[in-house]
Amino acid sequence: MVAKAVSEQPPLAVVLLSGGLDSMVCAALALEQGFRVLALTIDYNQRHRVEIDAARGIAQSLGVERHIVLPLDLRQFGGSALTADIAVPKGGLGEDIPVTYVPARNLVFLSLALAWAEAAGSGDLFIGVNALDYSGYPDCRPEFIGGFENLARVATARGDRGGTVRVHAPLQHLKKSEIAQEAARLGLDPAASWSCYDPQPDGRACGVCDSCRLRRAGFDAAGIEDGTQYGDDG
Amino acid sequence: MVAKAVSEQPPLAVVLLSGGLDSMVCAALALEQGFRVLALTIDYNQRHRVEIDAARGIAQSLGVERHIVLPLDLRQFGGSALTADIAVPKGGLGEDIPVTYVPARNLVFLSLALAWAEAAGSGDLFIGVNALDYSGYPDCRPEFIGGFENLARVATARGDRGGTVRVHAPLQHLKKSEIAQEAARLGLDPAASWSCYDPQPDGRACGVCDSCRLRRAGFDAAGIEDGTQYGDDG
Repeated sequence: MVAKAVSEQPPLAVVLLSGGLDSMVCAALALEQGFRVLALTIDYNQRHRVEIDAARGIAQSLGVERHIVLPLDLRQFGGSALTADIAVPKGGLGEDIPVTYVPARNLVFLSLALAWAEAAGSGDLFIGVNALDYSGYPDCRPEFIGGFENLARVATARGDRGGTVRVHAPLQHLKKSEIAQEAARLGLDPAASWSCYDPQPDGRACGVCDSCRLRRAGFDAAGIEDGTQYGDDG
Repeated sequence: MVAKAVSEQPPLAVVLLSGGLDSMVCAALALEQGFRVLALTIDYNQRHRVEIDAARGIAQSLGVERHIVLPLDLRQFGGSALTADIAVPKGGLGEDIPVTYVPARNLVFLSLALAWAEAAGSGDLFIGVNALDYSGYPDCRPEFIGGFENLARVATARGDRGGTVRVHAPLQHLKKSEIAQEAARLGLDPAASWSCYDPQPDGRACGVCDSCRLRRAGFDAAGIEDGTQYGDDG
């Protein structure tokens, strides 16, 4: 056997890593698919900034190529329960888009992921959006993801030169219970991720915001241990 | 005559204000069209950060409703002569997209403008892009602007609820000389704006980067005094 003279490096992908369960699984799937991962976390001065610490821990334990935590103070714009003095709803999911929606957040985040990818010579972005067990945010739907891919072509020098941009959303059509199962299959520790929008003073998750409700129901349905300490556990 | 009991406020628009000539004229045109202006300047750790001071002066002299200077360190991504240790070309405009192109910059900036607009209840964005006398950046072309408008509809709660998003690019089809004429017509002081990519140690504009070349040629063609101090004036 002759050793390969030139070993080609695996391709790079930029993965949006919030620190939640979905983005943790998404990053692990990107690695499983053979990408070297550039993990991007946006510190947008969100109410639940504790998720940023979770993102740091996840990036380290997964062994990503590089992790950038980028400050971007969306609180200057406000307009959301996550970035202004608006109470986080605790009554369960309703019909309308909830006040935890942050205006144009995923568009801003994907645009930044694209900026890093283009600078690094990559055309692959990963985002852990999910349009089944989700809060009804418009920027989690397939139409948005597909539309972003199209726009990326005319928005960049990469696209102008014939390069491709692909937005991978591997959790798009999974139920939360299936995401919990993926975490288990990939050997991830769910407790390393943070989902709650409204962390309690004692450091526990509230247990009753939309994000906690979706997470708990998913782990319950999957029969998998969540590992999160909820404030309403009694 | 009876005074109007309820006087409706003019509509809000978010204007991207870099501090350059084009964005200054663009902001003045938004005001002329009757909008109350929310001016957004991104401090992206650009080489020519002096333009941010120009933006502050312009926002104040125009009397905008509010001005946000938002730090966003694109130097962490690099990939451009404006955000990395890459020399600014001085030899004149070529055929290809130049190295002063900042990956996905206008997509990131318009996304942030949209975020602020949505939070403020506005669907009107202004950007001073120009696709005639320009450096060949892909994200200055009409296809990009139109594509962004389309994506904004599926990316936001505003769009989901049937609200419109309009990206005004009033300079899109003007020559630089016509932009200089617009500045004069609107009573603006060209010297209040900053265009040079590579400010000299003595505080003057370099005179020979693409941005200086386009600006000088425009004012020359219009026969209007520029007011900029160029380092190569002799």
